[in-house]
Amino acid sequence: MEKFSAIRSATCAQRARVEDLFAQIAECGRTDPGFTRASYSPEETAAHAVMMRCAADLGLAVHRDAAANTYMTLPGRDRSLPPILIGSHLDTVAHGGNYDGAAGVVAGLAAIAAIRSLGLRPARDLTVMGVRAEESVWFQVSYVGSRAALGTLPDGALDAVRIDSGRRLAEHIAREGGDPEALVSGKAALDAGAIHAFLEVHIEQAPSLEEAGIPVGLCTGIPGNVRYPYVRIAGRYDHVGTPRRFRRDAAMAGAEIALALDQVWQAREAAGCPMAVTFGRFHTDAAAHGLTTVPGEFRFSLDMRAYEAEVLSEIEAAFLDAVATVAESRGVTVALGSRAEAGVGMVSARIHDGLTAAAAALGITTRPLGSPASHDAAAFAKAGVPMAMLFVRNANGSHNPNEAMAIDDLLDAVAILASWLVAETCGI
Amino acid sequence: MEKFSAIRSATCAQRARVEDLFAQIAECGRTDPGFTRASYSPEETAAHAVMMRCAADLGLAVHRDAAANTYMTLPGRDRSLPPILIGSHLDTVAHGGNYDGAAGVVAGLAAIAAIRSLGLRPARDLTVMGVRAEESVWFQVSYVGSRAALGTLPDGALDAVRIDSGRRLAEHIAREGGDPEALVSGKAALDAGAIHAFLEVHIEQAPSLEEAGIPVGLCTGIPGNVRYPYVRIAGRYDHVGTPRRFRRDAAMAGAEIALALDQVWQAREAAGCPMAVTFGRFHTDAAAHGLTTVPGEFRFSLDMRAYEAEVLSEIEAAFLDAVATVAESRGVTVALGSRAEAGVGMVSARIHDGLTAAAAALGITTRPLGSPASHDAAAFAKAGVPMAMLFVRNANGSHNPNEAMAIDDLLDAVAILASWLVAETCGI
Repeated sequence: MEKFSAIRSATCAQRARVEDLFAQIAECGRTDPGFTRASYSPEETAAHAVMMRCAADLGLAVHRDAAANTYMTLPGRDRSLPPILIGSHLDTVAHGGNYDGAAGVVAGLAAIAAIRSLGLRPARDLTVMGVRAEESVWFQVSYVGSRAALGTLPDGALDAVRIDSGRRLAEHIAREGGDPEALVSGKAALDAGAIHAFLEVHIEQAPSLEEAGIPVGLCTGIPGNVRYPYVRIAGRYDHVGTPRRFRRDAAMAGAEIALALDQVWQAREAAGCPMAVTFGRFHTDAAAHGLTTVPGEFRFSLDMRAYEAEVLSEIEAAFLDAVATVAESRGVTVALGSRAEAGVGMVSARIHDGLTAAAAALGITTRPLGSPASHDAAAFAKAGVPMAMLFVRNANGSHNPNEAMAIDDLLDAVAILASWLVAETCGI
Repeated sequence: MEKFSAIRSATCAQRARVEDLFAQIAECGRTDPGFTRASYSPEETAAHAVMMRCAADLGLAVHRDAAANTYMTLPGRDRSLPPILIGSHLDTVAHGGNYDGAAGVVAGLAAIAAIRSLGLRPARDLTVMGVRAEESVWFQVSYVGSRAALGTLPDGALDAVRIDSGRRLAEHIAREGGDPEALVSGKAALDAGAIHAFLEVHIEQAPSLEEAGIPVGLCTGIPGNVRYPYVRIAGRYDHVGTPRRFRRDAAMAGAEIALALDQVWQAREAAGCPMAVTFGRFHTDAAAHGLTTVPGEFRFSLDMRAYEAEVLSEIEAAFLDAVATVAESRGVTVALGSRAEAGVGMVSARIHDGLTAAAAALGITTRPLGSPASHDAAAFAKAGVPMAMLFVRNANGSHNPNEAMAIDDLLDAVAILASWLVAETCGI
């Protein structure tokens, strides 16, 4: 137990470094309220630079790949062995918080700093990866940075347009120092078959841990998702007095489709099947709607997610059924627009069990927790890399300015991570 | 029957004048698509000027009141008798059609021109009224021009702000040549007790007449309405993966409230009770919504209408029930915002029967028709003026650029109107 006590002390000693890193990245894209570090923005790049300076101070080897992802490596005793990657992203949604994503990079650096401070040298490389462009709200493409590194970016992704700038992903990558040409024609930066494991620390995006009074959750799985970012319902604009039988109300059609899917969710939830359905954008057309006009147009985005591919298929079928039924009954047409999907991310049982054992040895209470959110770790799992995640308690959800993570809780996660890394690579 | 044949010929002879008036006002606020003559805009004023020039050509006496409504009068033999008013409005919704409202003013001028052309002089004044600001979408206040003339404008109406300009109604009235001070402190332009009747010709705002193959409908009643123009639901923005039990999804709350009220409508409709419910604006916040964010805010406008005050009360109660239930079940708060109402408009049975008889004598098929929409005529009815309306067939609804009224159908309505005016005031 002396080993765990030493690791606990070494990670607690990283508090000042951790606080300083958060303070520095808070200056990268501070908006009011919250923080806005768009995918492939100068603000995101600045956050990567903060991490690289810290890594250089720690004596880590630093490099970037063609997608402008950052790698910060503590070399192992045998550099030919597959490395362990510890990573997360540094971008945020618009007016998001300072912890979603960044906490995972900070945790990786803190764990490595703790291991170094103990004078330990791992058997294999330990690499902290600052991942680009995880927040799919910007390009409506999932896992851009991690999939670019793994060579699994879908066709056409480089032509996706950022919602705020209207510029292509390829152009944004080039502006932030990447090489989009190399992404098309070159070798992938990472070979999934030659990665020992991928670990990601992330704040929990719901208050489950807060509710349970537990600082750290150990991930049991990452949901896959199916998305329709740009659904458009065309009905007919009519006078507010138009009798019911003549109406083709696009907004009521949207409401009915959404409620139908919400009821599917409610029933599955009651039956113990975790999933989620989100209509993030859900709106009439501001240029044409009005108090005295029946809405002739309605748009929404849809994200459906579940932990099993079969469940996901069933939800999508329910959505398409609702669309067909409502289109028929309300006399509207529904253009589904583009469809995107991300596979279910399976957690390595071996690493999960190792983390559980490490937490027990450290005396830190944890609980198994399905990730409600998508994470870069899922892209690694899909590519065949053994993957695990640690969630840190957070009271106020994420994707908002009020994320509330205690540094003590993050340091608990770092202690668990560092203990597992030491057990896995230092032979003690 | 010779009289009716002569009136028919005289109204048919007005075709060129009618077409010319529509062509002229089409240049007042032509936008692409459709026409935009905002309430108390220079474009609306220009349309009033078109009608005044035509009236002057016809030798009618022209004047304006403090609300900048236009009156165009064929003097009667006894000028002390209460006049008959024939009127409608000249404003439009944004990107509306050229006929909604304007057709009624054109019809009034055409009827008077036809009567003059027959050498007839009415017993009492016949006044065509060009009414201001009927489209409540602009100031969210119903019947601004007609109620200003009648002295029944609600308190505070002059402080209402136009949605596009952000300026107060009083300021807009002054800019278009009215006198807002006089509206506050002066005598009303019209004394409801000294008006013999108010008649309004208007395009039908639904395709009922088109469906039935009938050119003209005779109004049986104008619905009252209750409106909540600015309802705002506050929930909480959350990450797209947030589990169901933690969500406070404002958009799903909006969808559920809307669907609940839609079901009330559907049930009443099935039971033969005409009414309507419209959520014209229905939207998440464009500045904050996104594919991967649970909506924390949702806004909508609501217009509820029915032909009986009691039905209206019941619908409103159903709305307020739905709000309370959904707020509780979804953990959101609902700010109802301002509430506005307009009373049910009763049609004069005597005038309705007179119009029916005139149509029969002319050989024009008509049918009784509840007005689904609100009209200035309702403000006159509420003030105690005997009121009637004639609807003209229109295939494509109104409040859109595709209004499709045939001039032949309008001339049928003019012939019925002129015949009734002759019977009522010329003693033949």
